[in-house]
Formats: sequence, structure tokens, C-alpha cells
Amino acid sequence: MSYSLPEFLAHAIAMEEEAAERYLELADMMEAHRNDDVSALFRDMHRFSLMHRDAIRARVGAIELPQLKSWEYRWRTPPEMGDEDAFDTQLDAYHALSYARENETRAMQYYRTVAEDASDAEVKRLAGEFAAEEEEHVAALDKWLERTHRPSETWAQDPAQRA
Amino acid sequence: MSYSLPEFLAHAIAMEEEAAERYLELADMMEAHRNDDVSALFRDMHRFSLMHRDAIRARVGAIELPQLKSWEYRWRTPPEMGDEDAFDTQLDAYHALSYARENETRAMQYYRTVAEDASDAEVKRLAGEFAAEEEEHVAALDKWLERTHRPSETWAQDPAQRA
Repeated sequence: MSYSLPEFLAHAIAMEEEAAERYLELADMMEAHRNDDVSALFRDMHRFSLMHRDAIRARVGAIELPQLKSWEYRWRTPPEMGDEDAFDTQLDAYHALSYARENETRAMQYYRTVAEDASDAEVKRLAGEFAAEEEEHVAALDKWLERTHRPSETWAQDPAQRA
Repeated sequence: MSYSLPEFLAHAIAMEEEAAERYLELADMMEAHRNDDVSALFRDMHRFSLMHRDAIRARVGAIELPQLKSWEYRWRTPPEMGDEDAFDTQLDAYHALSYARENETRAMQYYRTVAEDASDAEVKRLAGEFAAEEEEHVAALDKWLERTHRPSETWAQDPAQRA
């Protein structure tokens, strides 16, 4: 799929906003778990997402953006929250980080695909730039995952295993 | 998990609101596909969801509700929208109906589990009632699926196969 610039910008803004909201939720959850380090990380990621969104909005200027469907930008449900456990909110730090990593990876892959397929030069340039940013987020989360205790091996669908 | 009444009501309202938003998106998408029948169905489901939400809100009255995390009530991403296809918005009628059915089934299972586990009598009563409502939605979607052309068999994760 080759995006027009307005289509691409609409996706990028929606994705940053979604990421910002999810990081805020994760930060609150980690705070409730008294994991202040990981909570602070997620608060930083929340702030970065908002800053990136604002930068993209500045680029949008007077361009009119299309409306998107929720599934075009939303983060996935954490994998262990399936079926009867769908409403268990207890993510430990390791799995919260893995969940964020999975969604950042998905965003990175999205931007890469857009950059590859783009016929519009500005879309190609921006998508390549955003892919590199997401790659940095994935690398940062990987560092945190390395030093975070992994509480159990029973996660059937551990995103770390799939990445 | 045994919910308090405020916790349960917060979930039920959030779930109805999420369903309402998703049905509106699905209705718009079906309209864009010129499938007016399925679009009208989704508009009805949108309206029912809002009516149900309003009924629950009336039950809430002055009870103070807890804040929920997004993954406690959100619909899943349509299964075919994985990874590189994550942003393909083209759901045909059959898969739009299957997607709705999967989410309604998930809601039904949620309410059943809550009803079974409830120690609060009012939570048990309401959750049982809501489970029955969701069951009717699933049955309605099944009828529509029966008479809707299934366009391809290549859906690796067809929710109809998993149900």
C-alpha cells in the first residue's frame, strides 16, 4: 500500500497518541506495583510519544487528515489477557516491557513497510525517519528487559519468544 | 476474580461504549463497501450498545466508578490485521461479521465468568442478564454469517474456526 502524505501523517499521529495513552496506563500500573524505575521509564516514553505527536502535528499544518479506524493504529491487547483472563490487569514489569516492545516493534515494521512502498518522496523520508525512532525505542526496551527479572516461564504467548 | 458492584458496572459501561464505537466504524466501512444491509445491522448494534450503556449508567446513579485500563474492555484487533498487514482496513462483510462475533463472544464469556465468580448478589444477577444479552447478539451475528458469502478460505486465523 502506498500512502498519500495526509494518510501517512494521520496514521503517525494516531499511533503516537495511542502509544502515549498506553505508556501512561503502564506507568500507573507499574506505580501501583511499586516498581518506580519501570514506571519512570514508561512516563518518559509517554512524554516522548506526545512530543513526537506534536512534532508531526506541526508538520501537518493546514493539511486535512482523513479519519482512521481504531484498528489502524491501536496497540494490541497484552497476549496473556486472552479469553477468560481478558480482564486481569496484573502485568508484572517484565511482561509490561515485553508488551510495549511488541507494540513498538509492530510500529517499526509498519513504518518500514510504508517507507519501502512509498511513491511519495516525503512519505518515504518521514517513514524511514520514524522507523529509526521506533527502532531506538525497541533497543531501549530490550536493555530494560535484560535487567528485569522474568517471573515465570508459563506465558504461552510470550512476545519475546516471537520477536 | 470476584468484582464489587462499582468495578463490574465500570467494566460493563466501558465494554458497551467500546462496542458502540466499533460498530459505528464497521457500519461506516460496510457503507463504503456498498453493503447497505450489513451496514444497517451494525448501525442497529451501535444503537443497542448505546442504549444498554445508558441503562447501565442509570443503574450506576451516584455510585463512584473506578478508572479502567484500556485492555480491560477493548475489542481485539481483527485477526487478519497482523504485522505487515496491520493497517489494511479492508474487511469484507463476512470477516467484519466474524470479527464482531468474536468480540461479542468474548464479552459473553466475560459476563458468564463474572456471574459464576460473583459473591455480590447484584453483580451475579446483572452479569447473568448481560451474558444472556450478549448471547443474543452472537446468535444474531450467526444468522447474518449464515447468509453472507464467504469470500476466501485463506484466513489463517478465522474466528469462525476457533469459536
